[in-house]
Amino acid sequence: MIAPRIVICGAGFGGLSAAKTLGKWFSRSGRSGNLLLIDKENYHLFQPLLYQVATAGLSGPDIAVPIRSILRRFPQISVRMDEIQGVDLEKQAVFLAGGTVQYDYLILALGAVTSYFGHSSWSEYAVGLKTLYDAHRIRSQLLRAFEEAENTENFQDQEELLTVVVVGGGPTGVELAGAIAELARRVLRLDFRRIDPTKARILLIEAGPRLLGEFPERLGRIAEEKLRSLGVEVRLSAPVQDICRRLVVLPKETIRAATIIWAAGVRPHPLAETLPVPKDRSGRLLVLPDLSLPDYRNVFAIGDLVSVACVPGTAPAAMQMGRHVANLIIQEIASGPGQLDNRAPFRYKDKGMMATIGRAAAVARIRRVAFNGPIAWFAWLFIHLFYLIGFRNKVSVLLQWIWAYLTYRPGARILLRTEEHKTPL
Amino acid sequence: MIAPRIVICGAGFGGLSAAKTLGKWFSRSGRSGNLLLIDKENYHLFQPLLYQVATAGLSGPDIAVPIRSILRRFPQISVRMDEIQGVDLEKQAVFLAGGTVQYDYLILALGAVTSYFGHSSWSEYAVGLKTLYDAHRIRSQLLRAFEEAENTENFQDQEELLTVVVVGGGPTGVELAGAIAELARRVLRLDFRRIDPTKARILLIEAGPRLLGEFPERLGRIAEEKLRSLGVEVRLSAPVQDICRRLVVLPKETIRAATIIWAAGVRPHPLAETLPVPKDRSGRLLVLPDLSLPDYRNVFAIGDLVSVACVPGTAPAAMQMGRHVANLIIQEIASGPGQLDNRAPFRYKDKGMMATIGRAAAVARIRRVAFNGPIAWFAWLFIHLFYLIGFRNKVSVLLQWIWAYLTYRPGARILLRTEEHKTPL
Repeated sequence: MIAPRIVICGAGFGGLSAAKTLGKWFSRSGRSGNLLLIDKENYHLFQPLLYQVATAGLSGPDIAVPIRSILRRFPQISVRMDEIQGVDLEKQAVFLAGGTVQYDYLILALGAVTSYFGHSSWSEYAVGLKTLYDAHRIRSQLLRAFEEAENTENFQDQEELLTVVVVGGGPTGVELAGAIAELARRVLRLDFRRIDPTKARILLIEAGPRLLGEFPERLGRIAEEKLRSLGVEVRLSAPVQDICRRLVVLPKETIRAATIIWAAGVRPHPLAETLPVPKDRSGRLLVLPDLSLPDYRNVFAIGDLVSVACVPGTAPAAMQMGRHVANLIIQEIASGPGQLDNRAPFRYKDKGMMATIGRAAAVARIRRVAFNGPIAWFAWLFIHLFYLIGFRNKVSVLLQWIWAYLTYRPGARILLRTEEHKTPL
Repeated sequence: MIAPRIVICGAGFGGLSAAKTLGKWFSRSGRSGNLLLIDKENYHLFQPLLYQVATAGLSGPDIAVPIRSILRRFPQISVRMDEIQGVDLEKQAVFLAGGTVQYDYLILALGAVTSYFGHSSWSEYAVGLKTLYDAHRIRSQLLRAFEEAENTENFQDQEELLTVVVVGGGPTGVELAGAIAELARRVLRLDFRRIDPTKARILLIEAGPRLLGEFPERLGRIAEEKLRSLGVEVRLSAPVQDICRRLVVLPKETIRAATIIWAAGVRPHPLAETLPVPKDRSGRLLVLPDLSLPDYRNVFAIGDLVSVACVPGTAPAAMQMGRHVANLIIQEIASGPGQLDNRAPFRYKDKGMMATIGRAAAVARIRRVAFNGPIAWFAWLFIHLFYLIGFRNKVSVLLQWIWAYLTYRPGARILLRTEEHKTPL
């Protein structure tokens, strides 16, 4: 029997957990497998810690692990670094920049990209935070603004340079605002001679009436209080009207800021648009209860690409979906094609959610229990270390956290260039 | 008495050691000081380990330390991130991209840039290794070539993609070739399914008759043997005739290679050209024995910017020069202007030189003793850790070395993008 060709597009949390589940089964069952995992990068990115790369706490390789390295011990899995350009569901083909591959089973796990809700011009002035490139860009922009503020004589410029606006009061926005406040007030405090980094203004802008809308209401209030105590100005019920160069327009005020970070929304990978599948308002695919596409039993979509009632767009949800569809495929392969009529629907096990706000401060809901303070913070540290892939990365991140906690001097305050430095003269 | 304004241009080994020497003296003597250290980056780069960032062993922040952080405890020293565009020796002014600063004493420590010996078109096809940006570019190019080789069906393309040429048989070229050979033969060995990374061709090209020309002859031969045993093809007496896209032309052969790295030469920072000072053949400044410029007693040039007989272009030499000119300035300030007629000439203390070739292999000359093998390798590790600035960096680098040594899996095999990834469709 020829092994069915299983193609997984995307090596985020969903795609990787599907690949691992399948790889383990093939290894254990001794069957020959034919698995291909495609991603446009050569690494799996641990997105929950991306904000720490953006705020100079960690370096890129700390939270990025080569995909080939993760899947090294699964000989049935090939990895291909390539760009997905389209899918033909009838011909069972995935079109890549470097060629076409055929599949018997397809798992689409392409994740999300930053969404500016139709205001594409805003992307030029407000950087999103979805990729390592984004994180380096935010870090460079933040550090450069302080450097330029130190150099300028103009008081108004200085004020603008020392103002940071974070748009979006979800977990990413809250974590970013807290980390930036600590960077300015604690880390950079002694580094400059002319400016006082503790005078930097950090604003967190949220369109809705409260922070952390998906968390219990009490935790949103606690996060807000904690951010205010760190000196962050929180604006609630303040939908952004417009963004242009160094300018954010809110209903009641206009803020001049050199650094504007967009953490307000995501939309599914553009491939979703091209698929003949119903979508929700934000463009996510409405899949069947087993996560397959309507009319295409052999094609699954998981993670941030899909909309499933009561399932949040988080890493644990994507991982559970990855395991679910991998197990469906395993069952079908094991029982022979067409043998399995009733597929199990995907059931989300809600283990909770958490966000860190700063030094020894976090909010968490684990199952139905909401808590905060140092215990939530330790839980946050522990869970993120636990899920971070790679022993080397766990050790490196843990040591950097301990170091930064003890010394207030995080290690990655490096202004990386994204283009070549041209020597003048 | 008004404190004399001391301006240091460049925060490499020379500039930083001058700044620290002056900072310590000002702190100890209780005098008010007025020191400005200018660099175009916000970090000091530990260049001796740059080849390990290029070959995925270390991440950028491991070998880059924020300048402000290093000099934090010296309140007399200001740091300015800015680009030097020119110097007016008569008006005692340094012109920066963001303004002009006046000096009473000036220390020029701008270092060197990659030199293609007049063949500027080669720079497009053969990347140099002087900056963090260069290192990331080489790393991405190397890893991308393996990825593309895995994807292609064309055998000739595959051969070209799996060929790496390093031009220049000095320490940088030797260290790069050794590290790339180990990356291909040991690290990436199990990562791919279709290509065999151990079949990669790595060539080291040297124009002169032997490797490590500045080392004792025996060590050059040992390095050559060791590289050959790692599978590196060493070409001696092979001056490069031409370089174009993926092509290196030598007198007796033409090599097709997707990755071409240029480690064959440096020239002083372009500012050197603009100074009214005699220069040697490679454009380095011929300074007076005390390292001041002829006719300008208050202006010093140090490090790779200058040519001093029998002094190599190494980090220890630059550091010794930095301390020397700092001490001259301290003596003049302490004794009052014009009091010091006879300045001490700079004397280089030769402590030796070393280069690592691979796992547990290195060559070293410490004073007059030449040695090699594991002892030289341990000496190399120890000395590089010792001189690496920052306790956090020392610990991080040491742990990554131990990890890579035990597991053959260095941590930074991340293909960092230097430009934004545009999602297709």
